[in-house]
Amino acid sequence: MAIYVYKFGGTSVGTIERIKAVAEKVKAAHTGGDAIVVVVSAMSGETNRLIDLAKQMQSQPNERELDVLISTGEQVTTALLSMALTQLDCPACSYTGGQVRILTDSIHTKARIRAIDDTRIHADLKAGKVVVVAGFQGVDEFGNITTLGRGGSDTTAVALAAALKADECHIYTDVDGVYTTDPRIEPKARRLNQITFEEMLEMASLGSKVLQIRSVEFAGKYNVKLRVLSSFIEGNGTLITYEDTQVESALISGIAFNRDEAKLTLSGVPDMPGIASKILAPIAHENIEIDMIIQNISAKGTTDFTFTVHRNDFLKAKKILATIAVELGAKEVSGDDRIVKVSIVGVGMRSHAGIASTMFKALAEEGINIQMISTSEIKISVVVDEKYLELAVRTLHAAFNLDEAPLS
Amino acid sequence: MAIYVYKFGGTSVGTIERIKAVAEKVKAAHTGGDAIVVVVSAMSGETNRLIDLAKQMQSQPNERELDVLISTGEQVTTALLSMALTQLDCPACSYTGGQVRILTDSIHTKARIRAIDDTRIHADLKAGKVVVVAGFQGVDEFGNITTLGRGGSDTTAVALAAALKADECHIYTDVDGVYTTDPRIEPKARRLNQITFEEMLEMASLGSKVLQIRSVEFAGKYNVKLRVLSSFIEGNGTLITYEDTQVESALISGIAFNRDEAKLTLSGVPDMPGIASKILAPIAHENIEIDMIIQNISAKGTTDFTFTVHRNDFLKAKKILATIAVELGAKEVSGDDRIVKVSIVGVGMRSHAGIASTMFKALAEEGINIQMISTSEIKISVVVDEKYLELAVRTLHAAFNLDEAPLS
Repeated sequence: MAIYVYKFGGTSVGTIERIKAVAEKVKAAHTGGDAIVVVVSAMSGETNRLIDLAKQMQSQPNERELDVLISTGEQVTTALLSMALTQLDCPACSYTGGQVRILTDSIHTKARIRAIDDTRIHADLKAGKVVVVAGFQGVDEFGNITTLGRGGSDTTAVALAAALKADECHIYTDVDGVYTTDPRIEPKARRLNQITFEEMLEMASLGSKVLQIRSVEFAGKYNVKLRVLSSFIEGNGTLITYEDTQVESALISGIAFNRDEAKLTLSGVPDMPGIASKILAPIAHENIEIDMIIQNISAKGTTDFTFTVHRNDFLKAKKILATIAVELGAKEVSGDDRIVKVSIVGVGMRSHAGIASTMFKALAEEGINIQMISTSEIKISVVVDEKYLELAVRTLHAAFNLDEAPLS
Repeated sequence: MAIYVYKFGGTSVGTIERIKAVAEKVKAAHTGGDAIVVVVSAMSGETNRLIDLAKQMQSQPNERELDVLISTGEQVTTALLSMALTQLDCPACSYTGGQVRILTDSIHTKARIRAIDDTRIHADLKAGKVVVVAGFQGVDEFGNITTLGRGGSDTTAVALAAALKADECHIYTDVDGVYTTDPRIEPKARRLNQITFEEMLEMASLGSKVLQIRSVEFAGKYNVKLRVLSSFIEGNGTLITYEDTQVESALISGIAFNRDEAKLTLSGVPDMPGIASKILAPIAHENIEIDMIIQNISAKGTTDFTFTVHRNDFLKAKKILATIAVELGAKEVSGDDRIVKVSIVGVGMRSHAGIASTMFKALAEEGINIQMISTSEIKISVVVDEKYLELAVRTLHAAFNLDEAPLS
């Protein structure tokens, strides 16, 4: 008996009709002989409605009570989906996180899963039932209700798949898989049949918001095969798996980008040990997140220090930097919030030289000036003027032949 | 440290503002030094909203899943009230029925409480916290969520008061106590300071729908002092207690009535053993509830058999009776659905003769014809033409001096 964990997000269970459609899909798999565990989110809008009620009570709602409140959203969906399945003569049973039980730490609103007791689920699966579990929630060692934070239903699904040693964990969402890049920018963008966990992490953090990053890390750690599929369109989606099961031979899997960045430069900084932390500590102190950091080799005892922040934090960071500049005796503070980051991602680049030069040459041929470069094992990112975003994405998509299906 | 259990129904917690008002009331008692446990219902309308969702999934919703669904209503209120209390610097902690835990049997949608573990509540009260418990719900021995049926929040409150040996259990509702009769019919109706459990049972079943009957029985069984008060008007409400603590000296506590009855008579029935069951069994078989039953002594070997049913069942019962009449060789089936039942209730009548004659004389003086009479230890009921309802109630209210406050 193959075991599958299916996860349906808020949009997929957003109305009575959609919950019924989910039930049909689950029933078909169950009838086909698979053991199915379904993890559901709250109906779309419900969590926000509850948070709004809480804020009318307390501007900073008590976090233990907030968890008690918002965990009801998923509980409602589990009951409704179980009813819809029963109506289709498909035996089903719902569980809250506490009932399973999904044991977490006691950090309310962003708890982490510690252990899962799969006894009842296994018994129900053996009895031929579909098991419906509330995502996003658990219970601490004292029996208090906890939640895993936004997007935590993905984490619940992956954790259950790991605990049950499921064959695959299907994340049903409103996109039908992971694409080589955003199809709204490059209509030739192609759905990937497979992608590695590491590539997925780079793609996700760069703005392809298909899956919660934590759940991808979790899946990688516990060797869970994740598949991203559409709730609304039939198809095989994208399998997120390990490098060694990768059958696609492409060097580059996709082109990611981020429009939300702004860059800041402190030039003519005295080049001495500890300078980076002196610059970044006051920025971090104000809870401003920093993405890329670049410091070039020094010339004449001074150096230029550049980093990127979220565009919303640009003015705040620039103001802080002005103070730091005086303290450090730096020459100048400059910045630009009309930039974008474009990245090529692929495990294939690890073992192949020449990827970077292909990338830079393609951009140069289109007259796109590269302002910053940053690289990791499986990613090369460049910062360019925001007006070049679409052109850069399409140029790179073509340069690495991403519109052509790979040999398999 | 005095322990009080306060219960607030759906109307009392129906809006954000009302929950805040409840928090103010609870905080005042807590500041006064009392240990307070609050039992809350779902916000008014919420349970019906959830049931409506369920019915869209299944015309006959699975009862286990229905309990999972509707129990979220009370859970939401507990979290919101705890937040409101915390906002007022009154430490508070919420619990679901399962968390307390309130152990019930496994009869979903109408479970009965078996045991309550008060360990966590006692620890919280000792730590100076207000404890907020979801009414209406519990958990069975297998960890399944159960509900106690409509009005079950009253039962939760009384059961908690019994388990905690609380000094009093306050039921906050939208009326400010139990009245000698309906003030809409007799403006001189007076709020009772005290009433016995038995009188309350007779009053409740006769239509003074202040408290759920089950919770009154429960309170009597476990010696819990119940007090009915208004959430919206200040006052001492009505204490429901034992006869021996009764300080009011009235013979009669109140006048109850029921407009929903209809009477049916089978006349000229052969008077032989087993006749009553032959008449009533087919009626009961159709799930028609019977209230009063009267059979007078027989004359010439035949008797007349009269009973009352709910007005909605009148035509159905009359049709069944027509068939029975043929089978039994009875003379005639007659009936009237334009009747009402008026009752006087009071533990005082047990030891006093003459109550019945005072009642019948008062009605006769107003020309009100009595069609049926039925009595119990603490109640005398008469059936009269419905046109006499208001006159009968006012006549009896005056005849027993109910508008005058008793000596105390």
